Amino acid sequence: MELAVSTDLLLEGTHFRAGADARKLGHKALAVNLSDMAAMGAAPRWATLALALPAANETWLKEFSEGFFALAGRFGVELIGGDTTKGPLAVCVTILGEVPTGLALFRAGARPGDDVWVSGQLGDAALALAHPEFAAAAKRLDEPEPRVDLGERLRGIATAAIDVSDGFAQDLGHILERSGAGAMVAYDLLPRSDDVRKIEDGKIQARLVLSGGDDYELAFTAPQSSRGELEALSVELKLALSRVGSIQAGEPKLQVVDGKGRPMAVERGFDHFAP
Amino acid sequence: MELAVSTDLLLEGTHFRAGADARKLGHKALAVNLSDMAAMGAAPRWATLALALPAANETWLKEFSEGFFALAGRFGVELIGGDTTKGPLAVCVTILGEVPTGLALFRAGARPGDDVWVSGQLGDAALALAHPEFAAAAKRLDEPEPRVDLGERLRGIATAAIDVSDGFAQDLGHILERSGAGAMVAYDLLPRSDDVRKIEDGKIQARLVLSGGDDYELAFTAPQSSRGELEALSVELKLALSRVGSIQAGEPKLQVVDGKGRPMAVERGFDHFAP
Repeated sequence: MELAVSTDLLLEGTHFRAGADARKLGHKALAVNLSDMAAMGAAPRWATLALALPAANETWLKEFSEGFFALAGRFGVELIGGDTTKGPLAVCVTILGEVPTGLALFRAGARPGDDVWVSGQLGDAALALAHPEFAAAAKRLDEPEPRVDLGERLRGIATAAIDVSDGFAQDLGHILERSGAGAMVAYDLLPRSDDVRKIEDGKIQARLVLSGGDDYELAFTAPQSSRGELEALSVELKLALSRVGSIQAGEPKLQVVDGKGRPMAVERGFDHFAP
Repeated sequence: MELAVSTDLLLEGTHFRAGADARKLGHKALAVNLSDMAAMGAAPRWATLALALPAANETWLKEFSEGFFALAGRFGVELIGGDTTKGPLAVCVTILGEVPTGLALFRAGARPGDDVWVSGQLGDAALALAHPEFAAAAKRLDEPEPRVDLGERLRGIATAAIDVSDGFAQDLGHILERSGAGAMVAYDLLPRSDDVRKIEDGKIQARLVLSGGDDYELAFTAPQSSRGELEALSVELKLALSRVGSIQAGEPKLQVVDGKGRPMAVERGFDHFAP
């Protein structure tokens, strides 16, 4: 087995609002790391948790732990260590997982002719940021479901994979850069919820779907010969897998086309250092 | 081999001053984690770095990286991943190391009759916090030297080990709790620098030596039969190893006695959640 490692730092005011629900935060802090494991095709095994708290608040800690351990238990993840300190609320989870030697998924590896796939639905988390009244979308934002089972099953099938944390276009762009290839994606094929479809302004809907972050779906590429296998996997996992485009030889550029085949403008996804 | 993992979160205002030297911070963020590896007898191998920065400051990043990678290079540690985000300055390093199966050092394991040992000198870092004009002490505070080589060499010799991060008395206390044993330590035998010896107020000097944090020395226990081996190791590593007391059957209580054998009051070490 090979070891897969990932770390994420969540800060109050940047990644979650002050006063955010502690249980949901416990869930999300682990979920975003599980999503990284999924993108590598790794089976999550162990986690460490470093926590800064303004005060030793037992109720908060109890709720945070409930959210964290409920998710950890579902995926068999053991908390093996950590660090607790006083300071502005910050949560740093590092996760360790295992993947059979040679089968880890990387961002590099997409080849011209490969299909581009994405799991689940895109844009709900970004929708919830703007419109917390959409309850289903809010759950996607606050308690994302990491695609761990899918990631493990993509071993030996996907040629490249990434999780959608900063927006589909931007994250697929990382695959293109690392793989040295371009992609053509059909906007209409990108999966979205009924709530997102309700957004009448086409530009806003496109921004949610293409550039909305925090969905924690998997975007991946696979040879055309794997279509049948992936369709069967979608049924087995009860998780939508949408074939949305194809990898093309040439510059690492993403071209998104509308229903009439016209190129669409793509906004940048989340820029961690935007002013 | 077994895998050893440790994580530490350093926050501006809590663990370092606003405006702290970036190069020193890069060193220290890794050093405190290397010290945890040393306490486990593990050989450090890989690290992840999650960094929150108020702005993408290239000069700061360059200096931080210099400090981090200079130390990483000395111990053969490879940075394998990380996360960068915008927010109040925070540094979360997770380190992974290897230790031969069955030889990891733990806090539990000290047995009545074992000697208590400590490496290097105690109290300099705490002295520097109060008196930055002591240059040698300031270097101990800002750029601690993790006792990685010592930790690895203690495999099979030490019965328990811990690194001195919150103060000798408190950290040795953790060994006593986990081991279910007490200890008697002779205050006069506790190693300290000439700078610390210059502190004329005996109570203050005792507080530095017994309760000062951030020294990152190793405190450990070993059978009396290992004395010769440890004295030879001290010479070989050019690192003082002081035999300062012994483990005793009974309650997990630390008794410190002065030169006349009288019990001394021991202040608590660093409390992460003190008001």
